[in-house]
Amino acid sequence: MTYRAKIYVTLKPSILDPQGRTVERALSHLEHQNVEGVRIGKYVEMTLSGERGDVEAQVQQIAETVLSNPVMENVRWELTEA
Amino acid sequence: MTYRAKIYVTLKPSILDPQGRTVERALSHLEHQNVEGVRIGKYVEMTLSGERGDVEAQVQQIAETVLSNPVMENVRWELTEA
Repeated sequence: MTYRAKIYVTLKPSILDPQGRTVERALSHLEHQNVEGVRIGKYVEMTLSGERGDVEAQVQQIAETVLSNPVMENVRWELTEA
Repeated sequence: MTYRAKIYVTLKPSILDPQGRTVERALSHLEHQNVEGVRIGKYVEMTLSGERGDVEAQVQQIAETVLSNPVMENVRWELTEA
């Protein structure tokens, strides 16, 4: 089987997000004063072939060790049949 | 009301993604040869206050004009009560 993985990497809530703060300030200057808590993360999609159980373990490992830094970032993912 | 918007920005399928290609090659060297079609996008979260209809229009505008480049990128978003 072939699966499409969608992986979301976000900064942990306790970590400052200067890029998000900059977007927030820019939005505020563009008449969007009701926006706050802007956080910028990464979104990764990939296609994997194999048995579902193996692919799940593989995505978990890739998400934790390659795509994110566990000290600063949280990662979650979902799998759909491609 | 207060809403949390989750916004996903992805490169259009016809646009080359060198960053994704690099990740794909790195994964291939890490024994993940069954991975292909890696695409890297952005994931943005923000909190907005206001009426749902107004907030939806506002998120649509922010997503299209501030967070993405409509020539090269697709954008989609969802809204949940915060």
